[in-house]
Amino acid sequence: MATTAQILDGAAVSRKIFGEVAERAANFAAAQGRPACLATVLIGDDPASHTYVRMKQRRAGQLGLESRRVQLPAETTTAEAVAAVRALSEDDTVDGILVQHPAPAQVDEIAVFEAIAPGKDVDGVTMASFAAMGLSAEGFHSCTPEGIVRLLDAYQLPIAGKRVCVVGRSAILGKPVGLLLLARDATVTFCHSRTVDLGAHVAEADIVVAAVGRPELIRGAWIKPGAVVMDAGYNPGNVGDVEFSAAASRASYITPVPGGVGPMTIAVLMEQTVTAAERRVS
Amino acid sequence: MATTAQILDGAAVSRKIFGEVAERAANFAAAQGRPACLATVLIGDDPASHTYVRMKQRRAGQLGLESRRVQLPAETTTAEAVAAVRALSEDDTVDGILVQHPAPAQVDEIAVFEAIAPGKDVDGVTMASFAAMGLSAEGFHSCTPEGIVRLLDAYQLPIAGKRVCVVGRSAILGKPVGLLLLARDATVTFCHSRTVDLGAHVAEADIVVAAVGRPELIRGAWIKPGAVVMDAGYNPGNVGDVEFSAAASRASYITPVPGGVGPMTIAVLMEQTVTAAERRVS
Repeated sequence: MATTAQILDGAAVSRKIFGEVAERAANFAAAQGRPACLATVLIGDDPASHTYVRMKQRRAGQLGLESRRVQLPAETTTAEAVAAVRALSEDDTVDGILVQHPAPAQVDEIAVFEAIAPGKDVDGVTMASFAAMGLSAEGFHSCTPEGIVRLLDAYQLPIAGKRVCVVGRSAILGKPVGLLLLARDATVTFCHSRTVDLGAHVAEADIVVAAVGRPELIRGAWIKPGAVVMDAGYNPGNVGDVEFSAAASRASYITPVPGGVGPMTIAVLMEQTVTAAERRVS
Repeated sequence: MATTAQILDGAAVSRKIFGEVAERAANFAAAQGRPACLATVLIGDDPASHTYVRMKQRRAGQLGLESRRVQLPAETTTAEAVAAVRALSEDDTVDGILVQHPAPAQVDEIAVFEAIAPGKDVDGVTMASFAAMGLSAEGFHSCTPEGIVRLLDAYQLPIAGKRVCVVGRSAILGKPVGLLLLARDATVTFCHSRTVDLGAHVAEADIVVAAVGRPELIRGAWIKPGAVVMDAGYNPGNVGDVEFSAAASRASYITPVPGGVGPMTIAVLMEQTVTAAERRVS
């Protein structure tokens, strides 16, 4: 099928954000005599998690941010992980904290997240950040949801009054992205594994947000002609949650996988880290 | 038009809850040598607010709960209101705190709400309670949203897989009721003043939750035949947000106004107060 949709180039938009972050990071370092610092906590040996953390650390370094890595063994207990994160929350030289998930099964991830001081929750995973997103209060946003909103804004795609279908209801992706779009005056429907006739819901949407982590669950034929498709899925083999080429023949705008939502996620993480640093000294 | 819908009798269901609360309150008082205590903070002279507070205090008294009333003058500042609430949060003889809203315009209501200790937030108005509702964590629920869910459950009306249309997106009503129903596996759409073609959204819903505070905004003709209608509106003249008689001729179940959602709200407040007391001593 012919691709008629315009590609939402998250890589290009993120480069612009990275440029702004690098400038703010340089100003911060000059004024404070130390770089803004992102601490990353990695528990265990999951290879994909190691790759993600390396990628984030490399990006931080390129932007003039310090990155500190705390590696905990696979057999770490919840109490040990909480203690490590709490130490970073209290460490005055740490501005942002990222706990890479998933944590090993024996670790209560929520308890570990809650040990992140709200002012350092640059990945937007605490309950305080969730409430801030839901209630439009000041706080950090989950990075992928905020990245999706920023990508829509970068292309000046209208949100207010649009019908949005969010497929997925996770705590750091589906729910927050729906709440952020609701705050922007979209009419938002949350769909999930128990939704009856998912295709009918998707077919009514002006903006589809795929946030479910199941390869090509969203069929291209479901997409309303002219709709905007934001695919936050990232499954093995560089496959998203949306059947890309079939969707691209109907949509007006669509994110590629990779190169769409993914780079925006890292851009928001970096931006929120420098924002956290600036707020802490202001 | 003929009323064909079955009435969801919130008054009857709430009486059952009141009976259970009274028993738990008596057990608590016997074991602790003091009654469970609900503190109510009222700022200013709004007559409706005075009526609500009196109603809640009378009900608390009937159930064997102590109610303590803190009356602050209309010219109270945010700092004074926060201090008053914080004192109650720290008072070991207070189990639950209700700040009656609306507060006068000069008072930052959010700041006052946030002074309520999460363990005493029996009205479910803090950001911590919002996050707990959104993420299915332990915490207190906003009373009207929880009352709506409990009323559906009392009539064994299925929620999972149903299409829910929530009209309204306030912090303590529209958003939390949608999140609670999403947690119960409904497919939830949030509509509001910027929604295009509200009637079309309502017409697709198996369960309509009216939570907008505009008299008869929801037309009876919009209701899908056989739908369930939950009207949380309470406007002057005992008028709800739904055009009652026209809706009742199409719905399978409908809440009356008054006597539907309203009594459930107070029942949940009382129940959460005794739960807060029990948790504090356990």
